[in-house]
Amino acid sequence: MKPTLSVITLGVADMRRAIDFYKNRLGWPTRAADDAGIAFFQLNGIILALYPRVALADEANVSASGAGFSGVTLSHNVASREEVDQVLFQAERAGASIVKPACDASWGGYSSFFADPDGYLWEVVHNPHWDMDEHGGVMMKKAEG
Amino acid sequence: MKPTLSVITLGVADMRRAIDFYKNRLGWPTRAADDAGIAFFQLNGIILALYPRVALADEANVSASGAGFSGVTLSHNVASREEVDQVLFQAERAGASIVKPACDASWGGYSSFFADPDGYLWEVVHNPHWDMDEHGGVMMKKAEG
Repeated sequence: MKPTLSVITLGVADMRRAIDFYKNRLGWPTRAADDAGIAFFQLNGIILALYPRVALADEANVSASGAGFSGVTLSHNVASREEVDQVLFQAERAGASIVKPACDASWGGYSSFFADPDGYLWEVVHNPHWDMDEHGGVMMKKAEG
Repeated sequence: MKPTLSVITLGVADMRRAIDFYKNRLGWPTRAADDAGIAFFQLNGIILALYPRVALADEANVSASGAGFSGVTLSHNVASREEVDQVLFQAERAGASIVKPACDASWGGYSSFFADPDGYLWEVVHNPHWDMDEHGGVMMKKAEG
């Protein structure tokens, strides 16, 4: 199995609300209509998908029941501490809940977290130890991992 | 906020078990030792991180309590139906639980799901409507999205 991730799908409670957040408020590119039944956002070589939570569980052949911390966080790395502050400000204006204000992390970075309308956690972070590529992806430096 | 995802972190119950699955059984590249406190895997322009679930929740300033369906699925797209079968076979041998055997999907693809040791759901899928890039990423065709 090659080390690749192609799509991350978030199961959401209200498609219209979720699409509005990512498409209209954050301004992420999609061809999905505001009332689409599924929405795809082309990110850096991977795709973010929004799909109704119950339908997603059904698709995966698991029970949809579940609550609390999903166990998953998504990190949006940026090139500077200032950009962390800017993005967090933008996310808050877009209706995100700030769950952790930006602060210095023990490992040398500058990190913050917001929750999307379904509670999925995005870290907005500057990691001075990692290089960023032109697409917004990250590459670990050779010496670590 | 640019449409980018840099890192996806899975909060795991047992780091040694999780590292063993991704590193030793699936063979994904990492410099993390088998007993590391955090592990990073360089994927296609993004990084998969494994971190203890309680510590991850603490990092994000949320309660670690939660159970059941995480609401998130991760898709590993491959170039053919045959490769779906091959990867699923490999994942099963690696100790993954097959939660949905490969079958034809209503949207024209060929899809299956397995769960990693913590229950995180990976879809192994062939989507004939999407192009794959040389890194294993996916690009939607211009006409859709």
